[in-house]
Amino acid sequence: MQKVDVGRTILSANEQHALKNARMLAEKRKACLNMISSPGSGKTTLLCKTIKHLKGQLRVGVIEGDIQTEIDADRIRATQAPAIQINTEGACHLSAAQVSKALAQLPLDDLDLIVIENVGNLVCPGAFDLGENGKVVVLSVAEGDDKPIKYPAIFAKSIALVINKIDMLAMGVSDDFDLDKAMADAKRLNKDIKIFPLSAKTGEGMDAWCDWLKTNWRF
Amino acid sequence: MQKVDVGRTILSANEQHALKNARMLAEKRKACLNMISSPGSGKTTLLCKTIKHLKGQLRVGVIEGDIQTEIDADRIRATQAPAIQINTEGACHLSAAQVSKALAQLPLDDLDLIVIENVGNLVCPGAFDLGENGKVVVLSVAEGDDKPIKYPAIFAKSIALVINKIDMLAMGVSDDFDLDKAMADAKRLNKDIKIFPLSAKTGEGMDAWCDWLKTNWRF
Repeated sequence: MQKVDVGRTILSANEQHALKNARMLAEKRKACLNMISSPGSGKTTLLCKTIKHLKGQLRVGVIEGDIQTEIDADRIRATQAPAIQINTEGACHLSAAQVSKALAQLPLDDLDLIVIENVGNLVCPGAFDLGENGKVVVLSVAEGDDKPIKYPAIFAKSIALVINKIDMLAMGVSDDFDLDKAMADAKRLNKDIKIFPLSAKTGEGMDAWCDWLKTNWRF
Repeated sequence: MQKVDVGRTILSANEQHALKNARMLAEKRKACLNMISSPGSGKTTLLCKTIKHLKGQLRVGVIEGDIQTEIDADRIRATQAPAIQINTEGACHLSAAQVSKALAQLPLDDLDLIVIENVGNLVCPGAFDLGENGKVVVLSVAEGDDKPIKYPAIFAKSIALVINKIDMLAMGVSDDFDLDKAMADAKRLNKDIKIFPLSAKTGEGMDAWCDWLKTNWRF
């Protein structure tokens, strides 16, 4: 019986689209980050606050990936930043082909950085490159400090880790979250990963994160 | 060109194993629930507290699904309940074939209910039946009240919804989580879904959840 290596074929089709996106973005000198996390880690709130923080300094556009609804794109648009919503209708990750179509709808000439907010899923999106310059993984302290060792792939592949909702530590809510342990585990998986503990809600730690974006993600 | 419907073939192989598991469990008169959530919603803590709460009333065994590590199975074993760990080594959901092997290692004669704690992922595990009597979706209030409408499939397919970490509401931490809205949205997707708001940490709401397990999940 003939064996068909389906996994490889699907990945290659995605890789072709990812390469096309990467080339187009490089030609236009636009930076692009792919933001990945579990549902509810606070990606959209982080992006809204980041856009406001960087107003007049870095022009950010967003591609929103969700299984259904336009809720997240509407939240981004309320900050005046352009946002294109992709609904995957059940699929667990964004594909490079979907991102390709969304990029064509963004006013790229008016932007410095495009952030792709992937479908809330700490596993699958990590396996599909979208043409980005780097992946950013977001972990909220409410999820527990064992996530880097339990879901190692995405921490190993990302250039940056945002540890969000650190205000919960101070409030004694997620007091079993050991920040040093989570950071050490992430560094063990990926010695070069940049780590930003912050609270998008209170603003604590946002300066370091936004400085990193400004310094590194404008061509 | 010949078209190969790969999705269907993969699902059918899983369905065959799921059917085998379901038949075996029915013959032995053992109940089985498939617990699904995002990473960090508190499934393992909920199970540990549930096992202690039901001691002497309902004998629970656990199959733990994780990408890597034996952390969760060790936490369950500390309660004296039997637990079998499955490491998917990167895969985003448990398969019925994996569960079949784990079931063979559990002391089924000494158990009433087997709970399968799936890989932390609100999307993919919902598409793979494991031979369970029903799915239970767990949502923590830290994840936000928009999750039922943003990830509708798993809420539509589950027989019960546990809304965990409600102690955070009282502490004013996740004070933007509207419990009534989340429950109404889940009911709109699935009018028969049983909903248990609780805090596995403080014990609030655990009685109703454990009563439901005792009443419905012993053959």
